[in-house]
Amino acid sequence: MAETVARERKILVAVDESEESLYALSWCLENVVSENSKDTLVLLYAKPLRSAYTALDGTGYLFSSDIVATMERHNNEMADRVMARAKKICHDFGEVAVETRVENGDARDIICSVAQKLVPDVLVMGSHGYGLIKRAFLGSVSYHCAQNVKCPVLVVKRPKTSRNN
Amino acid sequence: MAETVARERKILVAVDESEESLYALSWCLENVVSENSKDTLVLLYAKPLRSAYTALDGTGYLFSSDIVATMERHNNEMADRVMARAKKICHDFGEVAVETRVENGDARDIICSVAQKLVPDVLVMGSHGYGLIKRAFLGSVSYHCAQNVKCPVLVVKRPKTSRNN
Repeated sequence: MAETVARERKILVAVDESEESLYALSWCLENVVSENSKDTLVLLYAKPLRSAYTALDGTGYLFSSDIVATMERHNNEMADRVMARAKKICHDFGEVAVETRVENGDARDIICSVAQKLVPDVLVMGSHGYGLIKRAFLGSVSYHCAQNVKCPVLVVKRPKTSRNN
Repeated sequence: MAETVARERKILVAVDESEESLYALSWCLENVVSENSKDTLVLLYAKPLRSAYTALDGTGYLFSSDIVATMERHNNEMADRVMARAKKICHDFGEVAVETRVENGDARDIICSVAQKLVPDVLVMGSHGYGLIKRAFLGSVSYHCAQNVKCPVLVVKRPKTSRNN
């Protein structure tokens, strides 16, 4: 092979609570991360902003501060859970450097802006997901990111079990 | 690493006359095909159907049979040239099994139907291209395919030199 020296690649993986995004992570580990790699996986999770809840409120109904606080707590716990699962998948795979980033904001904006700053070798995403609430309204996050980021984008669909396939 | 046995993967790479699609092929070889792999690269080229020319004819003007014959010859030569370049890129990379397929039809249909039949481990595409004429009218082939195929899709943009980036 032409390339025998292990390169130091930065692989940005957008993870969320969907099984599909974690499947995308597994697929990336098995198919893109090579045995002797010096790859660093950057696991990115976008935590919804508070304004995302009020955006739901199209009927004039306002969420009480209790509900907002509960949602925030839920979101923090979700971020922790997703990151824990994602890190476990990486560690079960083998020795690979892992960094985690949790950012507040719309998944589409977060993924694009982190990709712009990090300039990863590749951005890995599931084809759906990235915010259970948002995807219903905004459509495909992966499409938006694939259009806007400059690096290669790997969109992984979860086979068979996904209802959308 | 968890995975030490080389797997036999089938990697479908959609190539066309654009530099971007050949860059996508190179990127795939350097980043996805591993050193001890038993991967097979299937290079796919979609050759426009004759009806694609007449579809251009929105003004009532009809192409003469001479022009159609010239376009057909041009298309055949283009297919040969693209495949020759793509195969050279593979051979320069190293020992990797390569198959070629040239199919007649719309790039979007061809790529999706071949992906459906072959069930490759991954489909690799440039983010633009796949028919210089068609892309102006039909938009992004890679988006259509990413939406419709069931396998993981790797969309590679050519850095910097691309006018669209």
